Amino acid sequence: MMRCGALFASMICLFLWSGLGVAHPGQEPLRGTGNLGLVIERSTASVLIIDTTKRASVARVEGLGDLSHASVVFSSDQRFAFVFGRDGGLSKIDLLLGKVTKRIVQAGNSIGGAISDDGTLVACSNYEPGGVRVFDSKTLKMVADIPAKWTNGVSKTIGLVDAPGRRFVFSLWDAGETWIADFSSGATPVLTKIKGVGKQPYDGLITSDGRYYMVGLFGEDGMSVFDLWQKPISPRRILSGYGRGETRLPVYKMPHLEGWALAGDRFVLPAVGRSEILWVDKRSLEEVGRTKVHGQPVFAVARPDGRHVWVNFAHPNNDTIQVIDTLTAAVVHQLKPGPAVLHMEFLPRGNEVWVSVRDSNLVQVYNTRDFTKLAEIPAKTPSGIFLASRANRTGL
Amino acid sequence: MMRCGALFASMICLFLWSGLGVAHPGQEPLRGTGNLGLVIERSTASVLIIDTTKRASVARVEGLGDLSHASVVFSSDQRFAFVFGRDGGLSKIDLLLGKVTKRIVQAGNSIGGAISDDGTLVACSNYEPGGVRVFDSKTLKMVADIPAKWTNGVSKTIGLVDAPGRRFVFSLWDAGETWIADFSSGATPVLTKIKGVGKQPYDGLITSDGRYYMVGLFGEDGMSVFDLWQKPISPRRILSGYGRGETRLPVYKMPHLEGWALAGDRFVLPAVGRSEILWVDKRSLEEVGRTKVHGQPVFAVARPDGRHVWVNFAHPNNDTIQVIDTLTAAVVHQLKPGPAVLHMEFLPRGNEVWVSVRDSNLVQVYNTRDFTKLAEIPAKTPSGIFLASRANRTGL
Repeated sequence: MMRCGALFASMICLFLWSGLGVAHPGQEPLRGTGNLGLVIERSTASVLIIDTTKRASVARVEGLGDLSHASVVFSSDQRFAFVFGRDGGLSKIDLLLGKVTKRIVQAGNSIGGAISDDGTLVACSNYEPGGVRVFDSKTLKMVADIPAKWTNGVSKTIGLVDAPGRRFVFSLWDAGETWIADFSSGATPVLTKIKGVGKQPYDGLITSDGRYYMVGLFGEDGMSVFDLWQKPISPRRILSGYGRGETRLPVYKMPHLEGWALAGDRFVLPAVGRSEILWVDKRSLEEVGRTKVHGQPVFAVARPDGRHVWVNFAHPNNDTIQVIDTLTAAVVHQLKPGPAVLHMEFLPRGNEVWVSVRDSNLVQVYNTRDFTKLAEIPAKTPSGIFLASRANRTGL
Repeated sequence: MMRCGALFASMICLFLWSGLGVAHPGQEPLRGTGNLGLVIERSTASVLIIDTTKRASVARVEGLGDLSHASVVFSSDQRFAFVFGRDGGLSKIDLLLGKVTKRIVQAGNSIGGAISDDGTLVACSNYEPGGVRVFDSKTLKMVADIPAKWTNGVSKTIGLVDAPGRRFVFSLWDAGETWIADFSSGATPVLTKIKGVGKQPYDGLITSDGRYYMVGLFGEDGMSVFDLWQKPISPRRILSGYGRGETRLPVYKMPHLEGWALAGDRFVLPAVGRSEILWVDKRSLEEVGRTKVHGQPVFAVARPDGRHVWVNFAHPNNDTIQVIDTLTAAVVHQLKPGPAVLHMEFLPRGNEVWVSVRDSNLVQVYNTRDFTKLAEIPAKTPSGIFLASRANRTGL
């Protein structure tokens, strides 16, 4: 009888423990998720989960495959991160539990991803098989497969972004086309295909208001821009001199188009193959000036208030950051964080910037007003830094 | 022996249960906080905590005092909300536990509050005693007391906003001054006092980039604007016809200046005392057009992408919302949500808008593309709706 009681109590106990254990493995304390983020550790197939209030890493998540050129988007509740790997891996990471919730390998060769404005759809841009695949953000079950078929076969796709109204926009490297996949009426997209975009589009961006989609061209100079507010949507050629140029300058690294920053009334662009940044008028989309900088720029990122732009550089100048005042277009500060500064991410209100210094195995945190270093966080070959506040923004 | 075993097992069981219970009162499940928000229930001293993914309320928190004209800011981690009551109450609410963490009555008569860009300081604007008080966001202990002393006594303060660089900006109703309190070097603010702002400043706003602070005047027409990027900072008078006018129009409700929206290159303003909205060029700050609307506008809020502006109205037209296309400046849609539409809040990426309909005791949720109603959530006399994503934005 007593034996039975003990057994019963133990069973109840086990039940309570495991029941609660499922809800809180490791007894994770309750916490907000608005100040979390991820750092890609490129060479170790891992990511660090970071806490921007503590200025510290809180967990490492491993087993994420090839993370070269990895990118990340976040769920609307800012609990989950979706990591897009170079090898077609799509990993859903729980920022609270510090573990992989679900992982699929959705293609053989992939670059870039996006999440719909309502947070329900995650899209991946693939080289092999060429096209875009769209997944349910809860389950990672495939919702839609959009092969990039054109007259000569199947194209690699690049420059995938989310646009308002459950839409994704991307471009076809081989075909020189831009497609819009509109999921506003459900799981079956309405496709709009626009031809004549230019030779070998290599990257794309969407402005933070979701209005303009811009495509960089590898096969010719200039860019194509689409005003998504107009009907019909058609490309317009801008910045005819922008690109590798007739002299075929040696380009150490094609600049990231995500690095296009809107600072006040001007976009700031990294020049291609030249130690310059370009200023482009927001209304006319014409070049209105250049600023000489320390090396070939990779990212030119505006502080969220638009007053300063922080610029990093390609090898052999990648130990340096320059800060440019957008009122005067002059370099006002220079930092030497260390070897291989790969990425800069501002806190959403711009008071701090987080910098990955790959070959120092550090993430550094700076006060953006007085440029003092606030913290150093050990990380293994850190590259991209992605904060959960991106969940609230278009085109990131 | 067995009896002992049973007891022991039960004790272990109790220990585990209570131990976990301490970490998670009510055994709240782990969850992200990026999709939470608050609805002010004006007449019952309570707020609803809402979940924008579920489109539902998840808790009610009571005992918050006089919530007429209440406003809310959020901690950087998006776990806590700070509710500013009309009676000087400052309540810190835990969105995960659904309860008041700390509540103080910091003044006798108060309106408005703000949180510093680094999330560490919460400021309250007070009528009685006139001035601004600043609190540690963790503890609600007072960090600084800034009485609004001027030549004729102590002034009521209004139009309190946060500006980049741990600064707060506010104006003095009686004195016609604007003050900047700069906490960038610690807990003791450096004060800048600017005189000659105009008669009876009644409200203020800061643009979302933190550059311009604008002050509405009750005692005369026109507004004062400050460019916070220039040194020295001095006021400039704009929109000389903006205000109650020489004919002293009957004004049912002074429009909220927080309702100034930036849509593309133009600000959209509710006119004072007229059934119109005004378009103001962002660069020149001059009026460039007007659109006739259904009644005297209260809020004119831009959808986050800037394509549409949603407008609600003062009594007796407060059952209606009009939607204006910012490309054409034309009204493109009209809704009748019900009696006393008091506030509209967009999800951060603009796909939905949440609307409080006070006299229907409902919060309604609309798809912003096709204007379909997605949900109705019961609420007691709902007024302001505040989403946790405001934590990431300046001047909200």
